Amino acid sequence: MSRYTSMEHNKFLLQEVHRANEIFSLPRYAHLTWEEVWMMIEAAKLLADRDMAPYFKEMDAQPAHYDGNGGVKTHTQLKTIIQQAAENGWIGGGASFEHGGMQLPMVIYNTAQHIFMAANNSCQGYFSLSAGAAALITSFGTAEQINTFVPNIFAGKWQGTMALTEPQAGSSLTDITTSAKATADGFYTITGQKIFISGGQHEACDNFIHLTLARIEGAPAGVKGISLFIIPKFWPEQDGTLTPNDVFCAGDFQKMGQRGYCTTHLVFGDKANCKGWLVGEPHKGLAYMFQMMNEARISVGLDAASVAMAAYQASLQYTNERPQGRLASEKDPLKPATLIINHPDVQRMLLTQKAIAEGALSLVMECNRLSDLVHGSEGETKKNSLLLLELLTPIVKTYSAEQGSRSAALAIQTLGGYGFTMDFPVQQHYRDLKIMSLYEGTTGIQSIDLLGRKVIMEKGKALLLLQEEINHTITEANTSTDLKKYAHQLEIEVARIQQVLTHLGVFTQGNIDRYLADASVFMEQMSYVVIAWQWLKQAVIAQHNLEAGNFKNQSPSFYEGKVLTMKFFFRYELTHAAACAETLLDEEFLTNVSNKKMFD
Amino acid sequence: MSRYTSMEHNKFLLQEVHRANEIFSLPRYAHLTWEEVWMMIEAAKLLADRDMAPYFKEMDAQPAHYDGNGGVKTHTQLKTIIQQAAENGWIGGGASFEHGGMQLPMVIYNTAQHIFMAANNSCQGYFSLSAGAAALITSFGTAEQINTFVPNIFAGKWQGTMALTEPQAGSSLTDITTSAKATADGFYTITGQKIFISGGQHEACDNFIHLTLARIEGAPAGVKGISLFIIPKFWPEQDGTLTPNDVFCAGDFQKMGQRGYCTTHLVFGDKANCKGWLVGEPHKGLAYMFQMMNEARISVGLDAASVAMAAYQASLQYTNERPQGRLASEKDPLKPATLIINHPDVQRMLLTQKAIAEGALSLVMECNRLSDLVHGSEGETKKNSLLLLELLTPIVKTYSAEQGSRSAALAIQTLGGYGFTMDFPVQQHYRDLKIMSLYEGTTGIQSIDLLGRKVIMEKGKALLLLQEEINHTITEANTSTDLKKYAHQLEIEVARIQQVLTHLGVFTQGNIDRYLADASVFMEQMSYVVIAWQWLKQAVIAQHNLEAGNFKNQSPSFYEGKVLTMKFFFRYELTHAAACAETLLDEEFLTNVSNKKMFD
Repeated sequence: MSRYTSMEHNKFLLQEVHRANEIFSLPRYAHLTWEEVWMMIEAAKLLADRDMAPYFKEMDAQPAHYDGNGGVKTHTQLKTIIQQAAENGWIGGGASFEHGGMQLPMVIYNTAQHIFMAANNSCQGYFSLSAGAAALITSFGTAEQINTFVPNIFAGKWQGTMALTEPQAGSSLTDITTSAKATADGFYTITGQKIFISGGQHEACDNFIHLTLARIEGAPAGVKGISLFIIPKFWPEQDGTLTPNDVFCAGDFQKMGQRGYCTTHLVFGDKANCKGWLVGEPHKGLAYMFQMMNEARISVGLDAASVAMAAYQASLQYTNERPQGRLASEKDPLKPATLIINHPDVQRMLLTQKAIAEGALSLVMECNRLSDLVHGSEGETKKNSLLLLELLTPIVKTYSAEQGSRSAALAIQTLGGYGFTMDFPVQQHYRDLKIMSLYEGTTGIQSIDLLGRKVIMEKGKALLLLQEEINHTITEANTSTDLKKYAHQLEIEVARIQQVLTHLGVFTQGNIDRYLADASVFMEQMSYVVIAWQWLKQAVIAQHNLEAGNFKNQSPSFYEGKVLTMKFFFRYELTHAAACAETLLDEEFLTNVSNKKMFD
Repeated sequence: MSRYTSMEHNKFLLQEVHRANEIFSLPRYAHLTWEEVWMMIEAAKLLADRDMAPYFKEMDAQPAHYDGNGGVKTHTQLKTIIQQAAENGWIGGGASFEHGGMQLPMVIYNTAQHIFMAANNSCQGYFSLSAGAAALITSFGTAEQINTFVPNIFAGKWQGTMALTEPQAGSSLTDITTSAKATADGFYTITGQKIFISGGQHEACDNFIHLTLARIEGAPAGVKGISLFIIPKFWPEQDGTLTPNDVFCAGDFQKMGQRGYCTTHLVFGDKANCKGWLVGEPHKGLAYMFQMMNEARISVGLDAASVAMAAYQASLQYTNERPQGRLASEKDPLKPATLIINHPDVQRMLLTQKAIAEGALSLVMECNRLSDLVHGSEGETKKNSLLLLELLTPIVKTYSAEQGSRSAALAIQTLGGYGFTMDFPVQQHYRDLKIMSLYEGTTGIQSIDLLGRKVIMEKGKALLLLQEEINHTITEANTSTDLKKYAHQLEIEVARIQQVLTHLGVFTQGNIDRYLADASVFMEQMSYVVIAWQWLKQAVIAQHNLEAGNFKNQSPSFYEGKVLTMKFFFRYELTHAAACAETLLDEEFLTNVSNKKMFD
């Protein structure tokens, strides 16, 4: 079995960096102990080793595909995978006991999901989507809706999906036209089309529960007139039988990557007979959906970081096994070739991957921890955790997706020509990863969300909370002589973000078209700083253990590797934050070209 | 027919930026006029439109593949493509009249190749490889070798290949073991295996001429004992008949991209009956091969830039046709959606692509021009042109490959979810492009070549020549008020390169393992500066025409677009050169990790 994740890193993040034990002290999670939880994680790893990883390549080579008549063929192993995930609690694991879940905190639940994603990212989406759909129903649905749908979803029998995008609207939810008309029996008749529906229909589940955005007739224009509906493919009758609903899968999208994960085109009400069930109140659908959307964004960030981790592990293994060439200083051609890993440029590529994948994973865990504090605490802690989580969500999604792609490109590069062949997994990781910058809002949309909404909400309070967190890490780093230099560098970069925000005038009604034009550059700058914070946080702990000779959790080399990777990140990656700032501090508005011929 | 190149940009580069007319004033190219040459380029475009572009997708969907018994199946159109390219002179076009060529300068020949590559990069390699192989034979072969092989290669009947890589050696040519033993009749018996042989065997040609590196028995160890051989699949007898030679295609490599372009595994002398013909003198094979290799590196740079251009054109077209969303300042959801191209973030993505693709193409043309000066002039001009060309070769290859990939990723991003589907070409461009950073020496190898060899050769003379060229452009830019700011920025970046080189001690016997560790970062810094120079060069001409009201060659918007893209490059891309310098100026040597467990 090839290595696709670092269990040491997973343990380090949970146990030392993001302190799962503190989460277990919250009443909601008080039933858990570290030992028990780590056994669950190790069991998840065995499950992934046995049922998921071996099918990574096959699910790509034999992609999910439309059968021409409403059905979608998927890999035969998929049913086993979903069943096993369900049986082991990895669909409903995060839900409350009252809803049949294991009431696991996100730090634990998503560590298992990370392992599944790294093992085979084409299969994990099926249960992650189901989990999100169920969470949406338990949050906003009626008891009847919960009882009808959630147990079957948690059992892996029914697949949950999210249906937002329409052919004519793309990313612009304002423009969706799927319509809903109230019926006499308290339901709605739905008419419309949705595209890019992940897991939208396939052979491995018996029913599909489409959480769908639509407009009730007469609703206000724009996003304020959108409602949320449950539209099952088969309608569950009172007596437990299933009646076909008028939901037709009209085709699928063949993709460059994640080919085992089907993406479909759904038609509701082609025969004027599609029934939907309103969730919560009318016209509040988008706000509800954003619970699922925000979780999905973090999940995509996790997925991207996980695939980057798998690619890193594959390239690390290759360079440790194959000898090639000699160091530049070695001029004797008769000396035996050295292992590829000994070449400094290869170490640079490996450290870049490690810095990106492990740094992104640490930020995901930071978000999971915040999510656990939101769900498990009250008052200021709850409120502040939510604010900080909202700020970090577009960042974790975008950094992992964009830099994860770069990381996977380096994995290919590390293998040389072989990396480009179908004989090695890294090219698949590279292809799979590219969708992460598109899922659940493109990089452009995440960046506009960050700069146009998250940074300015509550007069910049979330940003202040982030700065407090970063300052806390800086203070800790300053207690160690070896880390002071890096603490100082991070301080400078935090100040530079303030300088940029002041320049752009985001808090003072600047020209919004103008400053949002460079939102993606700001996202890049901010991401470097946030990941640098995560690295300094890891290095503080590692350095402390090294200085104290405390190796009960990890080996000295493990901690040395963390300090080294932090230094590497600060020197090779964080340096580019200043370059982004320089771009942002320029006065000229270059991207408002009205004469399209200038692009020719 | 979708647009895949900008004929305006091609014309601008040839006519105004790289001044083809000056090349035509050299005796070797004096038979050419601008009008005649531009007609040839337009004919090449028609050929690409008719015979190549329509098969771009099909050649990916029905990839070249091994038939299990020595043969490789290719797309049925491939024979037509090669035949048509041959008939129109696009295989032998660059060769001298005496060898049956059109004696075209590289600026012209490679403009046509750019069009073919942008139209369908899976087919162009077949004739580009043949052209390179023929050029190698005409440069170093005997009259008999030339007469035997070159006319058939130029006619598109025989395929030329380059066979360097071996399974056990990878990029390390020092370690190749394919052996050659002299026979009584003046030939050699060859035994060995070669992998990653592009065009190594297929259905569209009758014979394959493998230019192969091997060691003559008893040769010195290392690269000083490598000789060059012609090994045809079928041996041409004196009477014109063909006898099978012991060359067996043992398999192929299925790839993530460029799937129409076969990549094979060849076995020479499995039945101890493979005959080869020595080219030139023994043990000088690597030096000879480097003629082909250097041309191939520029050709890969061109290929990468061309695919990036095709992806840019596809995304430009999409954003010009599809409305989606509204500007951030527009709060009324009832207003009609705006074209995607009107969103500032989309313009940023388009301008990034334009800056990369057109900037890289301009640098390729700079290299072609230098190559023409090497072949068409004498004395200092010839010598200096060669030096500068050698310096720029690893840069043009690497910048185009690395940034081209980033550019194609932005093309996907511009299309949103559709960009990831097989229904649109941009995902294929993205997959195809990734091989460019591996072909003919990976990015790591190119970077080591740049910093470890090219920068220091003749005590840094090539770098001095480059600085003179850049200074010339800076002086010209300083004559225009609007360009002064950018001229100054480039001056600062040029000085920063000197600062880095001094710090690394490359001219003063610094620690070679140490400074080559960061060669890829230096490559990145240097590339930004060199492409900035190409953009300033283009902007100087565009600005001059705008100020003089001279629009006989191009429209005002075209020139405005050039000036805008230059500004964009300087502000969004060149800013990262300083970040690379900061990395390079650090003292610590992080990438010499001897304890491999630190990567875990």
